[in-house]
Amino acid sequence: MDIRVVAFDIFGTTVDWYTGVADQIRPLLPDVDAGGFAQRWRDRYIPSMNRVREGEREWAYLDTLHRESLDDLLRELDVTADDETRERLVRVWHRLPAWPDSVSGLARVRARYTTAALSNGGFALLTRLVKSAALPFDCILSAELARTYKPDAAVYRTAAALLDVAPEQVLMVAAHRWDLDGARAAGLRTAFVERPREKGPDREADRAADVDCDLYADSFLDLATQLDTP
Amino acid sequence: MDIRVVAFDIFGTTVDWYTGVADQIRPLLPDVDAGGFAQRWRDRYIPSMNRVREGEREWAYLDTLHRESLDDLLRELDVTADDETRERLVRVWHRLPAWPDSVSGLARVRARYTTAALSNGGFALLTRLVKSAALPFDCILSAELARTYKPDAAVYRTAAALLDVAPEQVLMVAAHRWDLDGARAAGLRTAFVERPREKGPDREADRAADVDCDLYADSFLDLATQLDTP
Repeated sequence: MDIRVVAFDIFGTTVDWYTGVADQIRPLLPDVDAGGFAQRWRDRYIPSMNRVREGEREWAYLDTLHRESLDDLLRELDVTADDETRERLVRVWHRLPAWPDSVSGLARVRARYTTAALSNGGFALLTRLVKSAALPFDCILSAELARTYKPDAAVYRTAAALLDVAPEQVLMVAAHRWDLDGARAAGLRTAFVERPREKGPDREADRAADVDCDLYADSFLDLATQLDTP
Repeated sequence: MDIRVVAFDIFGTTVDWYTGVADQIRPLLPDVDAGGFAQRWRDRYIPSMNRVREGEREWAYLDTLHRESLDDLLRELDVTADDETRERLVRVWHRLPAWPDSVSGLARVRARYTTAALSNGGFALLTRLVKSAALPFDCILSAELARTYKPDAAVYRTAAALLDVAPEQVLMVAAHRWDLDGARAAGLRTAFVERPREKGPDREADRAADVDCDLYADSFLDLATQLDTP
């Protein structure tokens, strides 16, 4: 492999969305089960993006999709929340804790490769999230730049084109099979990082045995070692 | 002013293109006056972008424009250089030294604001340049994302839109009047940083007296102090 760029998925792969979203929901919606609420909100994530990907609706920013699925979920659970609370809830996705190995692993990978965030989060969301978690990326590359969502090939190819490298010179790192399948179909190399607690303590995350990839790692530090970084 | 994002021009404002380009030209073209060559190459910069901005030609990446103006200049000076040398010359613009106050000033501004590189350099060029000079930006925002060049309003407005702020919440920092005039016309706030040696020792750079701006600073450290950063 002739890797020049290592592109990292964010939600679940680099940051712990389950813990971060649940912890921020608790004070805003004290009467709901915060962990279960975070999971059910996230369950609506891929279907909401698919409606954009499949042309059922115009391009919409992730914050808009998060707001719509939040409104839907609150209605379903018969929970009342005013507009300001809903806006604050949408912004909990802008500030999430990194997994314990993310910052140090990224720093090692960055010493040898260009590191990029490549997420379905919007450019502004990612810039805020990366800054608040002090994640050492060289650049932010959002699906927004291709005006569609992963796993569309256009997202991965736009990333390679903006960094002026061939698709096979990009290693996509993710904890999700659907993301790596999309990356491989677009010509990228793939690394699976197992994050068993990604969906919370009571849900099954993607496991190595189920995933087809070029590299498998159990943390960003393990990935850095396999990539021969100092 | 309610500033959220501070966007920095790169060539001349954050890095010393004249010294960096001349120093890298010297070993590649030992028989030419490197400083004069750098200046004459740069003289072709704005006219080459204007042909894109005015629709005389399709969108072209800055590396392409640099290569064309290099070929033109070599022809004019009757200097021979093979294709590999020409490719290496184009890439000297990817690696330029920061002004002495750039890294420390940027770090202070970043402690309070989102900092972005906003240059006519391509996204890949900027990512490499920012990495090699260790410039502490939160994100890279190239004119390439708007597929035109500064001072077109679309470049400044695309930057604000991607960061989900209003144009007047962005402070554009540059050492060039034409850039700040463009930013102001697009609704941004403007800060002029005087870089008297920007064009080399024997050429006049833009001076404060000639520039209309919201803030004037003589270095990034002075700018950081005026922006009340720690």
